[in-house]
Amino acid sequence: MDQYQHIKQKSYDANMQLPKLGLVLFTFGNVSAADRELGVFAIKPSGVPYDELSPDKMVIVDFDGKTVSGDHRPSSDTQTHAVLYKNWVNIGGIVHTHSTFATAWAQSQRCIPIFGTTHADHLTVDIPCAPPMHDDMVRGDYEYQTGFQIIDHFAELGLSYEEVEMVLVGNHAPFTWGKTAEKAVYNSAVLESVAHMAYLTEQINNNAPRLKDSLIKKHYERKHGPDSYYGQA
Amino acid sequence: MDQYQHIKQKSYDANMQLPKLGLVLFTFGNVSAADRELGVFAIKPSGVPYDELSPDKMVIVDFDGKTVSGDHRPSSDTQTHAVLYKNWVNIGGIVHTHSTFATAWAQSQRCIPIFGTTHADHLTVDIPCAPPMHDDMVRGDYEYQTGFQIIDHFAELGLSYEEVEMVLVGNHAPFTWGKTAEKAVYNSAVLESVAHMAYLTEQINNNAPRLKDSLIKKHYERKHGPDSYYGQA
Amino acid sequence: MDQYQHIKQKSYDANMQLPKLGLVLFTFGNVSAADRELGVFAIKPSGVPYDELSPDKMVIVDFDGKTVSGDHRPSSDTQTHAVLYKNWVNIGGIVHTHSTFATAWAQSQRCIPIFGTTHADHLTVDIPCAPPMHDDMVRGDYEYQTGFQIIDHFAELGLSYEEVEMVLVGNHAPFTWGKTAEKAVYNSAVLESVAHMAYLTEQINNNAPRLKDSLIKKHYERKHGPDSYYGQA
Amino acid sequence: MDQYQHIKQKSYDANMQLPKLGLVLFTFGNVSAADRELGVFAIKPSGVPYDELSPDKMVIVDFDGKTVSGDHRPSSDTQTHAVLYKNWVNIGGIVHTHSTFATAWAQSQRCIPIFGTTHADHLTVDIPCAPPMHDDMVRGDYEYQTGFQIIDHFAELGLSYEEVEMVLVGNHAPFTWGKTAEKAVYNSAVLESVAHMAYLTEQINNNAPRLKDSLIKKHYERKHGPDSYYGQA
Repeated sequence: MDQYQHIKQKSYDANMQLPKLGLVLFTFGNVSAADRELGVFAIKPSGVPYDELSPDKMVIVDFDGKTVSGDHRPSSDTQTHAVLYKNWVNIGGIVHTHSTFATAWAQSQRCIPIFGTTHADHLTVDIPCAPPMHDDMVRGDYEYQTGFQIIDHFAELGLSYEEVEMVLVGNHAPFTWGKTAEKAVYNSAVLESVAHMAYLTEQINNNAPRLKDSLIKKHYERKHGPDSYYGQA
Repeated sequence: MDQYQHIKQKSYDANMQLPKLGLVLFTFGNVSAADRELGVFAIKPSGVPYDELSPDKMVIVDFDGKTVSGDHRPSSDTQTHAVLYKNWVNIGGIVHTHSTFATAWAQSQRCIPIFGTTHADHLTVDIPCAPPMHDDMVRGDYEYQTGFQIIDHFAELGLSYEEVEMVLVGNHAPFTWGKTAEKAVYNSAVLESVAHMAYLTEQINNNAPRLKDSLIKKHYERKHGPDSYYGQA
Repeated sequence: MDQYQHIKQKSYDANMQLPKLGLVLFTFGNVSAADRELGVFAIKPSGVPYDELSPDKMVIVDFDGKTVSGDHRPSSDTQTHAVLYKNWVNIGGIVHTHSTFATAWAQSQRCIPIFGTTHADHLTVDIPCAPPMHDDMVRGDYEYQTGFQIIDHFAELGLSYEEVEMVLVGNHAPFTWGKTAEKAVYNSAVLESVAHMAYLTEQINNNAPRLKDSLIKKHYERKHGPDSYYGQA
Repeated sequence: MDQYQHIKQKSYDANMQLPKLGLVLFTFGNVSAADRELGVFAIKPSGVPYDELSPDKMVIVDFDGKTVSGDHRPSSDTQTHAVLYKNWVNIGGIVHTHSTFATAWAQSQRCIPIFGTTHADHLTVDIPCAPPMHDDMVRGDYEYQTGFQIIDHFAELGLSYEEVEMVLVGNHAPFTWGKTAEKAVYNSAVLESVAHMAYLTEQINNNAPRLKDSLIKKHYERKHGPDSYYGQA
């Protein structure tokens, strides 16, 4: 009996969604699923092709980034996941992809402006883009520092990780999270769609206005207010 | 025996077309089908994934937006559908999506110029884009007001909803309609294709001319004139 | 025994290739296949969905555009096909689509510049774009005149229809042809791919140079010269 | 017993990956697989559709470009492959495609700037674009000279073919290579993805900065340094 079976399965299932949703080429992505009581998460092993993945190949890692169980080396992004789990205590799943449009915005080092209700149905601020790391952070423990780069950027902007479940890391690519791995995958697909639409919006009208405050507020309340009634569409 | 079975089935079938045509991500869309004699329409329940939909899960709503029958909450866009059915009495089906290119034009707050015959084969004016609502309308019954925003914009432009079966709502996304739910879905796919081509046309030639009047008139007559002979291709 | 069976089958097979190659939405395209000895061609009926097409539904039309045999009305573009078959005597198949990128160039009223060898492997001039028709031609027999618009534009540019098997009709969409219907479909797919790449090329470098003469000449000779050796890739 | 069976199979398998990865239209691409001990490579025959390919149809060619075995004519790009195998002695596989985004950059005659970590995970310089050949080279043995055009450009830039396993040939299209045919195919897919993202990056921010040196160095060491630990994602 494997006490980690449930998160291995969740991580596996969520990883397998990524190619189906068109979010990854080959193995360029990873999903983890945490068990808060056990203080660990299951994450994809490094460099294993998606068609050779199975739940038992997932690696179990604690919130300090130490491997607890597993025959494979964990994903090279594991330290970033660990830092986020350790500091943001209500996260149950994290996804990292190099999905095309979100990554293009990250490479452009721009946050994604809120242009419409597709965006506002999920978050009511621009999608933040953390700046590339300082050179001394890069020279240090790179993936570990990536986690802090994200957390520091949220602190600087005064954003809540429970309200805003996605970020671009400048020059790099997106991370998303949520209460579950499944929700984190959903957020990755939403981000990619919003990133695609925002790109097109600026191409069609390079003075396209951001969504106006009253609509942002309405959408926020529709989702969070005392009379919230919103289930997507 | 369920007297609403026929429209539940139509609404279900039409909803299932949306992901096949690439018009929706997850559940970001909805189709309704009306029975004018019974004075009701069937619409997708809110937040139910497409792979869990079935005809019996559709919700029956009257033209004042009151739920008549059904175990689920109707789509959050139901009030918009109700307003359109109530005011435009020859509509039998309505579709709302956040399809990528049409939504990008809506976010750009621009109508889609008529650049060619693909467009003219379906409507002979620019595809209208209703402006974002005034703040007081937003604060009110938002989805209900969205319906009037569309109707008012058509009145202002002097457009017939029977000639022009599609609209962009600024900052939001497209709505399409037709005599049947099936036709409304067809119109959503046509709109997305026309929106894609118009975007590319402006990228390739930022002085691209609109279709000339004689061709617009020809296409209008081909479809509507006394000697109409047009069946698409 | 149906003496037209062979061209009905060819036309049917070629029509069914269009959605598989991503060149048509719904029924927005048509392919015809000619029998030069019988002096007729088989063409798709008007407005029949692809999943209801069958070889026996194809319509037989002569080179003056008169229906010879068939239970359905022929495609609304039939007169254009007839004019091309009558005037360009070595054509065995014709395709008309509204494929996305080729149609965008047609709507832009620009010919497609020859930017690379993908283009030069198939034709060694810019892909011509016939201007929109004069108003008096539009008012006349529109589809019939479309055929002459194409032929006149080729004459004006001094192009051979046997060397250049594709054209854009301004504000409208592409036509392609070839010795067989199969070759004409191949040309439609090549045109769409070349149109996509040329669009991207100008976006990446708005001073992108045309292919230089020595390379154009090389590619021409590779295909046509006394020592021709070229089979695509 | 066919002593070439193993490379015929590898070349066949790798060729069949190209349409699955969306890298070729029809037969517009080719893969070869070399056996260094036998001094030969297996390559796709010219002009054979992918659905008619089989391992036994592959053609065996030596590093001087002479056909050693096979019933078909080898791909028209065979001389380019031969030159690369002969001069770059650690290559085991080569791929040539006309994939959409990479070809657009080649037609633009621009190298692809290194904008992010997706790029840096695979190579730490801009993806080079060899200029179009001089007219006298074009007039000579074109495909043979294409090989030297690539090799000379690498020499000029001081690049190692073992570090940089891909190139654009100006006005033409990409070539990629690797220790195996499978790795060369992988590189073609990576190149297409990086080309797509770089295009979007410049569209979103036409002053997008290149990846900074510290990050380039980090990624280089992550892959190559004494403490390398990188397995993609």
